[in-house]
Amino acid sequence: MDLLALYDAEHPSRTVRELVTATGLPKSTVVRLVHTLEQCGLLWSRGDGRTVPGPGLLRWAELARTTWQLPEEALQRLRELSEASGGESIGLYVRQRDVRVCVARHEGNRTLRHVVRVGAEMPLWAGAASHVLLSRADPAEITAVAAHGPHREWADTLGERARRAAARGWSVSHGEREPGVSGAAAPVFDAAGRLVAAVALGGPTVRFTDEAIAGFVPALLDTARALTALGSIGGTA
Amino acid sequence: MDLLALYDAEHPSRTVRELVTATGLPKSTVVRLVHTLEQCGLLWSRGDGRTVPGPGLLRWAELARTTWQLPEEALQRLRELSEASGGESIGLYVRQRDVRVCVARHEGNRTLRHVVRVGAEMPLWAGAASHVLLSRADPAEITAVAAHGPHREWADTLGERARRAAARGWSVSHGEREPGVSGAAAPVFDAAGRLVAAVALGGPTVRFTDEAIAGFVPALLDTARALTALGSIGGTA
Repeated sequence: MDLLALYDAEHPSRTVRELVTATGLPKSTVVRLVHTLEQCGLLWSRGDGRTVPGPGLLRWAELARTTWQLPEEALQRLRELSEASGGESIGLYVRQRDVRVCVARHEGNRTLRHVVRVGAEMPLWAGAASHVLLSRADPAEITAVAAHGPHREWADTLGERARRAAARGWSVSHGEREPGVSGAAAPVFDAAGRLVAAVALGGPTVRFTDEAIAGFVPALLDTARALTALGSIGGTA
Repeated sequence: MDLLALYDAEHPSRTVRELVTATGLPKSTVVRLVHTLEQCGLLWSRGDGRTVPGPGLLRWAELARTTWQLPEEALQRLRELSEASGGESIGLYVRQRDVRVCVARHEGNRTLRHVVRVGAEMPLWAGAASHVLLSRADPAEITAVAAHGPHREWADTLGERARRAAARGWSVSHGEREPGVSGAAAPVFDAAGRLVAAVALGGPTVRFTDEAIAGFVPALLDTARALTALGSIGGTA
């Protein structure tokens, strides 16, 4: 899995030499791992000597797409929230261990916009969506997640932001993950009342003024409630 | 991976009990495997007690899609071949160990049509696309693949069909995998002349008469040559 993680949009193919450099593993180990992954269909050797994500992934791709595809009604809600915010981008995040994964999105229409691909893994120690996803986490969990943060006292900061998100039902962040990037997020629950996802607005800090935030938070909370009512995150079948 | 393979279009979610029944493994082992797969993001526990393909797969989905997406010019060729055959379905297959995987397709427009999803794994011991994909395989390989076939002498049959595919540059099959289903396939090569894929027409045997086959084989060979010339199977980056 760590080997597969070396393939991304910037590195859609890799040579064994590149994999050796990137992993620091001996060449013989890399060759063996590549062979095993090829056997499973997770890698594929192209004729030009480069390896690419294998055709076996297409099956998982289809399954993941089917599982995480939101119904049209939910996507419509994301579009409406984007419009209500003046064209900011919307993302829906679920927690996966110590990261959050974007499982759906609606890209805003502004020239300067927040762009996150579906499937992108983002840090759980930063951002409004993370505060929301951690709003029911216990102190030990917060400490574990904050260990990836920018400094030693981050657990205090993160814990406070998570508690605040729990108390008022939404959160905002400015430049936590990346300077100049802001976010606002609210929780989505499943039918049993479990916290399942965070719906978030993302955009440049310069547009996330207190006034603008006060303007779009009601729409954000409406959207979160609508997604909770629709209840199809992670599929229904 | 064997556990993940239990999730498909008919079983988009699974309970631990179902996984125990399907695998025959002890419950404690299944619980441990599910936990490990959850940690990697390959599985996700929904609030209703069912597990689904995890959000971590969305990243592989995007990578696989990018790698295997054919350029518009190639897709146009598949569409044209479908039209030239009177509306049969077209599939592009690559070999992955002892199966073939559909990496691209164009679905025909007939009421009764051959439907294969991208990512579907099909047997390598049957079908015109398999004959083509095995047309350069040695006898030992043919024997290994044929071990999955319908009877003990299948290696002879498969070997003969693979040799014939090599000799005339295309192959046809009737009901090898499934009664009433026929196929015709031709090889696609990479820039170095290596066999990389098979492009195949699929449809009901009742429409794959000798006359119909003679009619569409020239278009099939043209398409295979065009895909060879375009040379972007498995990506170019």
